[in-house]
Amino acid sequence: MEQKIRIAVVGYGNIGKAVEQAVLHAPDMVVNVVFTRRDPSSIKLKDSAAQVCLVSEAERLKSDIDVAILCGGSATDLPDQGPHFAALFNTVDSYDTHARIPEYFASVDKAARAAGTTSVISTGWDPGLFSLLRVIEEAVLPSGEAYTFWGPGVSQGHSDAIRRIPGVRDARQYTIPVERAVETVRSGDQPHFTTREKHLRDCYVVADDGADVKGIEKAIKTMPNYFADYDTKVTFLSQDEMDANHAAMPHGGFVIRTGQTGEGMNHVIEFALKLDSNPAFTGSVLVAYARAAYRLNQERQTGAKTVFDIAASYLSPRTGEELRKEML
Amino acid sequence: MEQKIRIAVVGYGNIGKAVEQAVLHAPDMVVNVVFTRRDPSSIKLKDSAAQVCLVSEAERLKSDIDVAILCGGSATDLPDQGPHFAALFNTVDSYDTHARIPEYFASVDKAARAAGTTSVISTGWDPGLFSLLRVIEEAVLPSGEAYTFWGPGVSQGHSDAIRRIPGVRDARQYTIPVERAVETVRSGDQPHFTTREKHLRDCYVVADDGADVKGIEKAIKTMPNYFADYDTKVTFLSQDEMDANHAAMPHGGFVIRTGQTGEGMNHVIEFALKLDSNPAFTGSVLVAYARAAYRLNQERQTGAKTVFDIAASYLSPRTGEELRKEML
Repeated sequence: MEQKIRIAVVGYGNIGKAVEQAVLHAPDMVVNVVFTRRDPSSIKLKDSAAQVCLVSEAERLKSDIDVAILCGGSATDLPDQGPHFAALFNTVDSYDTHARIPEYFASVDKAARAAGTTSVISTGWDPGLFSLLRVIEEAVLPSGEAYTFWGPGVSQGHSDAIRRIPGVRDARQYTIPVERAVETVRSGDQPHFTTREKHLRDCYVVADDGADVKGIEKAIKTMPNYFADYDTKVTFLSQDEMDANHAAMPHGGFVIRTGQTGEGMNHVIEFALKLDSNPAFTGSVLVAYARAAYRLNQERQTGAKTVFDIAASYLSPRTGEELRKEML
Repeated sequence: MEQKIRIAVVGYGNIGKAVEQAVLHAPDMVVNVVFTRRDPSSIKLKDSAAQVCLVSEAERLKSDIDVAILCGGSATDLPDQGPHFAALFNTVDSYDTHARIPEYFASVDKAARAAGTTSVISTGWDPGLFSLLRVIEEAVLPSGEAYTFWGPGVSQGHSDAIRRIPGVRDARQYTIPVERAVETVRSGDQPHFTTREKHLRDCYVVADDGADVKGIEKAIKTMPNYFADYDTKVTFLSQDEMDANHAAMPHGGFVIRTGQTGEGMNHVIEFALKLDSNPAFTGSVLVAYARAAYRLNQERQTGAKTVFDIAASYLSPRTGEELRKEML
């Protein structure tokens, strides 16, 4: 039997734990190392016999790792970690600051090319599978309009924005696609939506004792960029209710393209995700792309790659023959 | 400006005409030649200034064509045409006899490798996009079940089978996914369906004057493989009604995978198509893969390829930079 692909998990938060779980479903992979910036002895791994090491020990472990899956955040972790780890290992990450992707790609690409490694950046489901489907849908139906709806699901960024309001102890924000907008698009119409027409924002807030709840509600609903352009619903609840009913991190959404071919024929293409857990699914996607990073590197296809550059066969543990026989 | 990719359309039936239309939506392509086995002077092209030539003239036109899109049928045309044209040109086809794909792949691969050409076989939407999504969905959610539903749409094979019954003048068969089965799958359940539970068969039949309609209905409903295992509805109508109401060739369907990641989290992935015209959309997909065949060949990636082997960037007229900046 071939040797398993040896995975390093870099950062043991929500995504890191999900990657550890996802590797258990991959017959050809094993988690070999978990890197942390905390005291390694404080980390109890849930389901693997991997060694836990400090991020600073990475270089020493070069020969023990085939692919490092970077599970840090896009704001502060990945801009440094991406090129740093690409200089040592094949890598996969879920960098999601859309506006800075070209810059991030260039910095990882430079490090990976110099080191002869392969780095898949910005994967997961958006950016990731949703991006991939946007490109496929446009390529096969060039005359048309594309729509991405997100949710129903928890937005970490919007939840954090509410938590920064004085008097707020805890908050959870659900992004909800407007059903009627989704149905209109599915019917083949090509409307131009305002921000408000596409998504609702549904907020659950725990206020400090004696806090000005009217003021908090107003602060949320008028917050520029995050809420002002949306229909926003605010519900106050106790911390107990929050903990009991809003601990999960569901998410999902739709990538829909409608368009015409030559003779006035209309077509609708839809890709939809309904996820019980955003980090769990993201981790599972990262693991599939880790397989691709390893195989591309075996073929000496080095440098930074995105979901657009990677054929589906690289994601699957099946051979080309099996895929053609059983899946085509 | 770069020169356009020069396309040959091989066979000017429903798919060939759809390819001609689809190329009009591709800024980087032009139809240069239409090959036919009929008298070329009898072919009136709808929207292009291409020359119409006999299939037997193909070799003479080698330097005028970048990719030949083979629009013949899988039963008798492609088994010969596939390897024959692969020896002359880069090719794309929609070979769809699932059981014989490995054999067809081998014969086209051999011809293409010897000639240094690139051939994309078995593309369109199923096989094609549906196959691609089955592989992607399985790779990112390995522990789960996959379901493909077809329709609502016209099945040419089933319509033909009805037409072969004595006393039938014309027939149209719609394959209809059972709504309740689709909803059950979407909810995240993983049922095992019988054939009957997944699809209905809805038949519209024009009988000859004085034909035994009860006998025809029974012959349809008991026909092995085609109808016996399904709930089948048969409606008799006049030829005028048939021509007025059943001329279109809509189709579509769903590729749904439901599964779990490590910690008991359930996820549903769905890809859906709703097509006004099966051949028009198939033609549009073939054209996107023709772009890929051309580009792969420019990179000396020769031989037979399937949708599993081709990264999305090869399908898109956009550059890698544009894709990363605008679509990721």
